[in-house]
Amino acid sequence: MNGEQKNIESAEIITIGTEMLLGELVDTNSAWISQRLAELGVGIYRHTTVGDNRDRIVTTMKEAASRSDLVITTGGLGPTSDDLTNECLALAAGREMVEYQEARDHVDTMFARFERTPTPSNYKQALFPEGTMLIPNPLGTAPGALLEMDGALFATLPGVPDEMNGMFTETLAPLIRARSDGSIVSRTLWFTGIGESALAEEVQDFLDAPDPTVAPLAGQGKVRLRITTRAATPEAAEEKIAPVEREILRRLGDYYFGQDEETLESAVGRLLREQNATLAVAESCTGGLIAKRLTDTPGSSAYFAEGLVTYSNEAKERLLDIPWEMLVQHGAVSEPVAGAMAEGVRKAAGTDYGLSVTGVAGPDGGTAEKFVGLVYVGISDAEGTFAERLDLSAWARSRDAVRERSANRALDLLRLRIEEKNKS
Amino acid sequence: MNGEQKNIESAEIITIGTEMLLGELVDTNSAWISQRLAELGVGIYRHTTVGDNRDRIVTTMKEAASRSDLVITTGGLGPTSDDLTNECLALAAGREMVEYQEARDHVDTMFARFERTPTPSNYKQALFPEGTMLIPNPLGTAPGALLEMDGALFATLPGVPDEMNGMFTETLAPLIRARSDGSIVSRTLWFTGIGESALAEEVQDFLDAPDPTVAPLAGQGKVRLRITTRAATPEAAEEKIAPVEREILRRLGDYYFGQDEETLESAVGRLLREQNATLAVAESCTGGLIAKRLTDTPGSSAYFAEGLVTYSNEAKERLLDIPWEMLVQHGAVSEPVAGAMAEGVRKAAGTDYGLSVTGVAGPDGGTAEKFVGLVYVGISDAEGTFAERLDLSAWARSRDAVRERSANRALDLLRLRIEEKNKS
Repeated sequence: MNGEQKNIESAEIITIGTEMLLGELVDTNSAWISQRLAELGVGIYRHTTVGDNRDRIVTTMKEAASRSDLVITTGGLGPTSDDLTNECLALAAGREMVEYQEARDHVDTMFARFERTPTPSNYKQALFPEGTMLIPNPLGTAPGALLEMDGALFATLPGVPDEMNGMFTETLAPLIRARSDGSIVSRTLWFTGIGESALAEEVQDFLDAPDPTVAPLAGQGKVRLRITTRAATPEAAEEKIAPVEREILRRLGDYYFGQDEETLESAVGRLLREQNATLAVAESCTGGLIAKRLTDTPGSSAYFAEGLVTYSNEAKERLLDIPWEMLVQHGAVSEPVAGAMAEGVRKAAGTDYGLSVTGVAGPDGGTAEKFVGLVYVGISDAEGTFAERLDLSAWARSRDAVRERSANRALDLLRLRIEEKNKS
Repeated sequence: MNGEQKNIESAEIITIGTEMLLGELVDTNSAWISQRLAELGVGIYRHTTVGDNRDRIVTTMKEAASRSDLVITTGGLGPTSDDLTNECLALAAGREMVEYQEARDHVDTMFARFERTPTPSNYKQALFPEGTMLIPNPLGTAPGALLEMDGALFATLPGVPDEMNGMFTETLAPLIRARSDGSIVSRTLWFTGIGESALAEEVQDFLDAPDPTVAPLAGQGKVRLRITTRAATPEAAEEKIAPVEREILRRLGDYYFGQDEETLESAVGRLLREQNATLAVAESCTGGLIAKRLTDTPGSSAYFAEGLVTYSNEAKERLLDIPWEMLVQHGAVSEPVAGAMAEGVRKAAGTDYGLSVTGVAGPDGGTAEKFVGLVYVGISDAEGTFAERLDLSAWARSRDAVRERSANRALDLLRLRIEEKNKS
C-alpha cells in the first residue's frame, strides 16, 4: 500500500446492486460488516445502497471518501456487464484498469476445480485499478481490491455473504485491527412489561449522558437498552459499562429478562433447566408460534416435552380434557378455558408447567364481546392454575402483531412464575 | 400541501437509527418500500442509513432532496431524546416545530386504550414542522409527516414494520399513484423442487430479454421468477406480461405453486378449501413451525384442525399411537415413524389428511447414522400413507435453514398429494 498509513477511526459501507433498490433482496451484509467494525472500534457513519449505474457509483464512492477513513463496498464484482465496482473505483481514483496475473490464474484454478472452461467475460474479474492490492477469495472467482483514494482506504468485496464474510475475516479484519485504536463494546439489556417511554423516563440521565451512550429500542412488547462505549481495550470498555449496567438493573430489574442474544424463549429455557423442570404448551390463536419459538433454541428437548395446537373445540375437549359445557358456556376464548387448557396440557404431558393461549387473532371473526385482540394466557403448575386477560385490540389489524405479542406476554408470564418459584 | 404538485418519478429512502449502523438490526423496511415504489412506477436511486445524529440526518435529507422527487424516511419518530427525524426535517426545511392538536389527541387516545397515562415526553410525538400534513398511524402513537422541501416531497414513517406498512399502504401509496406517470407491473411466480440454475437454464431467453425483464431469486428451497414491465396503464403492462407468464408456466408448470403473495401454506389452504378437506399435523424437529405457518393465514381454522408438537418419544406414543417397539427399533427419526406419525395424527384428529416431520435439526446431536439434516416427511390420507427421506446436511450449520427447508418440503409434498387427488 502506498500513502500515509493513518488510523482507521470511521467507516462507511456501500452496497452496489439494482436488485437491492428494487427490494428483491434485503441487504444483510451491511449489518454483518457493521457488527465486525464496531467490535474493531471503528465508528460507522453511513450505509448507502446504489444501483448498477456507473455515474452514481462513482459519485457515491467520492462522497464516502470525503467523509470516512475506510470505505467497504459489497457487490458488483461478477463477470457480467452490470458488474461495475472495480471499474468505478478506477474512475473515481483516476487510475487505469490493468490485468493482474494472479487474479487470472485464480479464475483458471476455480474453473478447473468445477471442470469447466472460463469464457472471455470471466477474465474481466482479473482486471483491477492500477496499484491495487488483492483480497484473496478462496470461495469464489472474484478477488477484492484494496486501494487508497483521497485519504480513504477502499476495499471492494463480493455480495455473496459466504465469500464476503471469509474475505473480511481473513484479510480485512487484521489490517483494520493494525490501524485502529481501541475497542467499542456494546451491551444490550432486554425488558418487557413496560413501555418504551416509561422505561426511558426511569433512565433519562443515562440516555442524556455522552459516554457510555445508552439508547432504547422497542418492538412487539419488548424494549431493549443498548449501552455502548469505546476504550483502549475491551476490558477497559467493560469497566466503563459495568456501573451503568448495574444502576439500570437496580432501577428496572423487575422488567429485565436477559442480555445480548437472550430472548424470552431462551430465558424461559434457561430457568427451566436450572429447575430441571419441563413444559408443555397448548395453543389456539398463536397456532404453534410459541412451540416454534421455544424449539428455536438448540437442546430445547431437555425441557420442552410437547405442544398442542388445539384449533378446534373438539381437539380442546379430546386432548386437553376441557369439559364441553365449559366451552359452550364461556366460549373457547375465555379465562376458564385458558386455565383449563394450561392445566389440561400439563396433566396430559406430565410436565411441571403448562402454558396456554386462546384468543381472537383476526383480522376477521371478532364480535363485540369476543373482539379481535382479546387473548387469554393460562399458566398451570403443581401449586395452581391462573389466567390473564390481554387486550391487544390496538393491533387488531395485524394478525402477526396480535400473535407475536400474545406469545411474548405468555412467555413472560411463565418466566415470572418460574422465577417466583426459584425465589421461594 | 403547498408547492408545485410535480410528478413523482424518482425516490430515495433514508433509514434513521444507530442500531442499524451498529449492525444490531437488519433494515428490511427499505426493501419493502422499494418493492411498493417499483410497483407504483417510481425509480429508486438510493438507500441511505444514518445514525441518530442531528447534523448527519439534516445533511442526508438535504442531499436526498437535491436528487429525488420523493424522500421517505423510516425510524426516529419515537418519544425519546434520540428520536430526531421530524426535528431534523424542520431544520432542513427551515421551519419551526409546532404542536398539532390532532396528534396530541391521538397520543391521549392510544394511551387511554391501554388505560395508561402519557408522560410529557410522549407529547413530543405531537410536534411537527410547521405546514406538515399528518400521516395517520392507527397502530402506534406516532403519526408521520408529509412536507414539501426544496422541490422534494418528504414522508417520515416509523421504523416499526407493521406501523410503517399500514401508513404507506393507506396514505402514501394513493398519493404517489395520483402523482406518478404510468405503471410498473410485476408478477412473481413461485417454484419449488427445482434449483435456481436448473430453472434459469429453462428460461434463459427470457432472462436475457430487455422487456419484460425476468429475474430469478432463490432461498430456502424455493425459487421465484419476477416478471416486470412498465406501460402507460396497468392493463397495458398486464398485456405485455401475460404471454411471458404463459410460456414460462408451460415450461416450468410442474414446479410452480403460486403467484405473488402465495406461499406454500396458503396454496395448501386453498386446495384444502376446494376439497372441503381438513388437515392435522404432527411435528418433531420443526417444533410447531408448520402449524404456525398454516395458521398465519386468516380463516385457517376452516381446514386446520390441530397440530401436535411431539418432541418426546412418550408424546409420540401417547398422542400418535406409535408403537414403542417401532421407536426403539427404528428410532424417532426414521421412515416408519414419519409414516406412523402422519397416520396417527390423522386418525386421532379425524381429519382427511395427516402431515408429519421428524428429523435432526441440529446444530448438535447428530450421529453418523442419524446426521444433522436427516429429515423424514410423512403424509397420510384415506388411500394410504407414505414417507420421504430428505438429506439437508448441506445446511447442517443452520438450525433455522434445516427447519425452514423441512417445512417447505413437507408443505410441498402435501400440496402435490392434494393436487393429485383433485385431478383423479
